[in-house]
Amino acid sequence: MSEIPDNAPLRTVEWVDGQLALIDQTRIPLALEYVRLSTPEEVEAAIRTMVVRGAPAIGAAAAYGVALALQRWNGRDAFERDVQRLRDARPTAVNLRWAVDRAASAAAPWLDREDPAGALEAVLREAHAIAREDEEANRSIARHGLHLVPEDSTILTHCNTGDLATVTGGTALGIIREAFRTGRRVRVFADETRPRFQGLKLTAWELGRAGVPVTVIPDGAAASLMKSGQVDLVIVGADRIAANGDVANKIGTYSVAVCARAHGVPFYVAAPTSTFDLSCPTGQSIPIEERDALEVLEPAGLEAPPPGARVFNPAFDVTPADLVSAIVTEKGILQGDYVRAIRDLFAPGA
Amino acid sequence: MSEIPDNAPLRTVEWVDGQLALIDQTRIPLALEYVRLSTPEEVEAAIRTMVVRGAPAIGAAAAYGVALALQRWNGRDAFERDVQRLRDARPTAVNLRWAVDRAASAAAPWLDREDPAGALEAVLREAHAIAREDEEANRSIARHGLHLVPEDSTILTHCNTGDLATVTGGTALGIIREAFRTGRRVRVFADETRPRFQGLKLTAWELGRAGVPVTVIPDGAAASLMKSGQVDLVIVGADRIAANGDVANKIGTYSVAVCARAHGVPFYVAAPTSTFDLSCPTGQSIPIEERDALEVLEPAGLEAPPPGARVFNPAFDVTPADLVSAIVTEKGILQGDYVRAIRDLFAPGA
Repeated sequence: MSEIPDNAPLRTVEWVDGQLALIDQTRIPLALEYVRLSTPEEVEAAIRTMVVRGAPAIGAAAAYGVALALQRWNGRDAFERDVQRLRDARPTAVNLRWAVDRAASAAAPWLDREDPAGALEAVLREAHAIAREDEEANRSIARHGLHLVPEDSTILTHCNTGDLATVTGGTALGIIREAFRTGRRVRVFADETRPRFQGLKLTAWELGRAGVPVTVIPDGAAASLMKSGQVDLVIVGADRIAANGDVANKIGTYSVAVCARAHGVPFYVAAPTSTFDLSCPTGQSIPIEERDALEVLEPAGLEAPPPGARVFNPAFDVTPADLVSAIVTEKGILQGDYVRAIRDLFAPGA
Repeated sequence: MSEIPDNAPLRTVEWVDGQLALIDQTRIPLALEYVRLSTPEEVEAAIRTMVVRGAPAIGAAAAYGVALALQRWNGRDAFERDVQRLRDARPTAVNLRWAVDRAASAAAPWLDREDPAGALEAVLREAHAIAREDEEANRSIARHGLHLVPEDSTILTHCNTGDLATVTGGTALGIIREAFRTGRRVRVFADETRPRFQGLKLTAWELGRAGVPVTVIPDGAAASLMKSGQVDLVIVGADRIAANGDVANKIGTYSVAVCARAHGVPFYVAAPTSTFDLSCPTGQSIPIEERDALEVLEPAGLEAPPPGARVFNPAFDVTPADLVSAIVTEKGILQGDYVRAIRDLFAPGA
């Protein structure tokens, strides 16, 4: 158990003495423990099993995974396989592919000169840059997002978007913590977020240690809280945002968005620009990961579905842009015509 | 483990040799076991801990509980306390209060004549009548509800409304089983139904053993299935229906109803007339039980919330009548002007 003071931000992804150090998110809230990884296979497994999760966090972790692939240099073919392995660890969060490609591109010119040591240095520089940029982006998202949080408000969130979902700082939760830190009276309802309980285990833990009042609810309770007027706004993160503003995020997000619209509650998304994928014209092009039925079954004390029954466990859903009141990025708040706003965001020189 | 054949209906509540025999629903799907109860305290505990659950089932169980109170006759004051204990075991399902009051009323004239043995006989007759009426009502609900199920359709349901929720036969699930039995091609998505997993553990088990194709999903996945056109209709049960047609049912039902409306999916409720409470003008008068936080925490492997966090665990929510496409009762299908339809349903001579 670490002795990090309760209110200090956490570094979820860090390079320490030639290894990748990650907070083991499968142990939170029972213990704050770090794992040290030395191979791309270990990084891939940590991403798949959600030792590290959250789109920005898995992006940074995988970039360091590319460095680990170079540290055990065994020829270019093996390296390319390692890169592919990291890129494919999970399909939905585009930050993963984006970060791996950035790291691999930094390596390429050095590998063309058959200099893996130079490539390692370049990739580490790039991975550090990705981590630093994420930290800075999150600070900026928190600053921009603050404008969306009334002085006295109750915020509903889904899944986890805090320090643990990023290198440090968080996206949606970063906004909430910044609102609290700067004196706004904020209270949070955290959807428990089935099947893996990121809301109950991660979000409630992060907000609790930061002193932000937080109440966990079963996902199915969010709508009735909205009906009784107990939710002023919703803020969630994103795993991939299409060119038209459609948002892929943790399963259950779309249900929250539909209910928010039905009750006139603003529904905000907070994400860095690394989460946008302009190659997806709409959310329909975003691949949705289906995960193991055991994630659903085991918490219920079952090892298999009842005889004759099946389990469908999609990890994400897509919320269409027209249900999104605004998207908070490090470059500012997008609203209204998302197609245009997103095009402008990525315009050369923007 | 019982040897009931897979396709036979289950008797959830039964009077056997002077005891109340209940299927222990906390053991399903791992084992089909019966408990035998001899005192009102045991019946109260079985209702509170959800050994027996489902509005019609707890009503019938509590009526037999009144008989158990008479079997250990210890004076009228003790009897009245027992009746109150049973009546208050859970607050939301009105069938409980309704059945206890019916049983106690049958006892009253005999007790006025200081004849507890006569009262016991009368209460047992009344409890048997409640059980028989429930069985008949469910057969009738299934017959009426059949008209709402297209020849080839995918039905979403929430919580459990099968044999296990009633004396036998089920309400919403009774309709689905009847549709399947009579040759319609039906497939079911069952919300797992947090926090207690009645969908995963009870509904999937009941449909699986009946041969009905059933897929369990996390509650948060229902909306995206509707968006992708995979849900043709929703059928759920009810714990209490107000005079205006507002429906209290398992937490998460309201979210399903809002999403159904947003996607043009019909949302049907199936319940016997014993579930209606004309003393509640709207759903706002229906008391909503809040249950122990451990129901939410334990499946996540936690014994307490993360430090500083709280858990809110409401067991039910209220779906306003205007989101309900129809209510199927044993007396027919209510649609349109619910205030009038419900008034007519209970009119003298109706």
